[in-house]
Amino acid sequence: MIKGARLPLAATRGLNTVEVNELIEGVLERRPRAVARAISHVETRGAGRRQLIGKLYPRTGRARIVGVTGPPGAGKSTLTDRLARLLRGAGETVGILAVDPTSPFTGGAILGDRIRMQTLYTDPGVFIRSMATRGAMGGLAPATHDAIDILDAAGFDWILLETVGVGQDEVDVVRSVPTVVLVTLPGLGDDIQAIKAGIMEIADVFVVNKADRDGVERAQLDLEMMVALADDPPWRPKVLKTVAIRGEGVEELLGEIETHQKWLEESGEIGNRRRRQLRLRVENVLKEKILERADATVGLDKEIDRAVQNGTDPYSVADGLYEGVIGAEREG
Amino acid sequence: MIKGARLPLAATRGLNTVEVNELIEGVLERRPRAVARAISHVETRGAGRRQLIGKLYPRTGRARIVGVTGPPGAGKSTLTDRLARLLRGAGETVGILAVDPTSPFTGGAILGDRIRMQTLYTDPGVFIRSMATRGAMGGLAPATHDAIDILDAAGFDWILLETVGVGQDEVDVVRSVPTVVLVTLPGLGDDIQAIKAGIMEIADVFVVNKADRDGVERAQLDLEMMVALADDPPWRPKVLKTVAIRGEGVEELLGEIETHQKWLEESGEIGNRRRRQLRLRVENVLKEKILERADATVGLDKEIDRAVQNGTDPYSVADGLYEGVIGAEREG
Repeated sequence: MIKGARLPLAATRGLNTVEVNELIEGVLERRPRAVARAISHVETRGAGRRQLIGKLYPRTGRARIVGVTGPPGAGKSTLTDRLARLLRGAGETVGILAVDPTSPFTGGAILGDRIRMQTLYTDPGVFIRSMATRGAMGGLAPATHDAIDILDAAGFDWILLETVGVGQDEVDVVRSVPTVVLVTLPGLGDDIQAIKAGIMEIADVFVVNKADRDGVERAQLDLEMMVALADDPPWRPKVLKTVAIRGEGVEELLGEIETHQKWLEESGEIGNRRRRQLRLRVENVLKEKILERADATVGLDKEIDRAVQNGTDPYSVADGLYEGVIGAEREG
Repeated sequence: MIKGARLPLAATRGLNTVEVNELIEGVLERRPRAVARAISHVETRGAGRRQLIGKLYPRTGRARIVGVTGPPGAGKSTLTDRLARLLRGAGETVGILAVDPTSPFTGGAILGDRIRMQTLYTDPGVFIRSMATRGAMGGLAPATHDAIDILDAAGFDWILLETVGVGQDEVDVVRSVPTVVLVTLPGLGDDIQAIKAGIMEIADVFVVNKADRDGVERAQLDLEMMVALADDPPWRPKVLKTVAIRGEGVEELLGEIETHQKWLEESGEIGNRRRRQLRLRVENVLKEKILERADATVGLDKEIDRAVQNGTDPYSVADGLYEGVIGAEREG
């Protein structure tokens, strides 16, 4: 039983090389505590993360990764849990990452929600983890991608990434996974329709959940018309109906996910997605690196204080920090 | 009448120094086309943005800046428009930035929505602009902060920043403005409550909008209890009720915003917020800079293609790019 309990930050900050190697060994053997600890380490952007992911990366690429996204209230958690149960029934192991970036202070709201799904929690073939990090330097995307690598290297057959489909970082994270399921529900107002439109283009499968409610035909039709508008797309998303709470339609959804994953491989589109994902990750790591160096060599807080006093514009402050880093690297 | 029409990207990319100076002059004279063009330039992260903001920055700091945030469907646009009308009635000029980061493809969904609010559109004392940029290199936050500077330097008395309160970048943007109004509505489900919790800590004023609906007392009570839990906070947010569509409660809201802004100055808390905002901006500019340099000196696409072929992990790719930049700066 793995509850994805989070260790205190301090406990993961200072891993030495021996500890990192032990962690890697533990992850590769899929030991729950090691997996949890490794994720905590990348979540807190611990100093050993580079080594950790560097060593695990060659062991990744086997898991099937699915993003489940959509507006608040669409029933993403329930649907994700139902997918996980179905996969477990077929003997597959499942890692679930619930990305909850909007709760920096209450971190774990989604996880709390999940306590209801008791069956999954007592199943050793399932690992559930809520990601809620907003480190000063790090970010949501790098930590989530690293956590996916950890679960992949640990040998989970499937990784389900659940995220609220709103916000730039969140869209970036979910769009870099192979198959994206966009969950919506009947009767959303105009405001939510607008939000949906933004992530429309990244959806590989549409789901109208809560399909026992009024307005489901309309919601389905709206989506189907939108999908039909695309002019000869390489992949045309289906629009499925589910009642996740009762498990209805979940088997069809899994079937469609598998069809999409087969298409990705056969069409070669998987290569494009890998490139996009790697580019996003590299950009994020590079950003982390320059900020860490700037903080270590010049000191961010000190520079900010000075700039506020002098009324220096942000571009000039950044230039100064950049020059400071270059200067230090030159000497070093 | 300024409709915030967006110029084609190419038109703003290649501004020379003379053109940037003309733009600065136009912004300082609050010429609508110049303001619109300057915002387009920072939105597309054009090459002249550094110079543009560097020159405008000393002219900023006069506008009163208010963030209006909350979950989809809460009625943020309507409330923002009502606030703007009220301010106009008092002879104040108003700039509105509607941050719509989730619609990279349909950009302008919120703006489209606003077409309903005809009165504001024909008023030369109001500038409305939808921000929907997701540049490869840039990001939402830097563009939005630069746009705020432009409106501030242009002499708008008030700047209203409207954003969906979900997502890391979006929270970062809104939390760096002086006064944050969190708009919610009666009868939200658990899922939305969880999201609300994440931005709870950054709210300076709570609004239960659509207060003519069932459940308003309950929603207000919930928020008031949450606010009461805080142990001797420097500022305890009020919980107000509005029916924005009919303008009810908007005057009280504006009064409370003004009270909060007075408190910021008197308590010195405004200094903390300025530091926090500048730090966020400097970090973002520094990130942009390293990515631009890496792309110019090593070439991001080329490196990514090679890394995908070789199965190189993202940390090693980023290290290589970083070393490439350092090497180039050393020679240059």
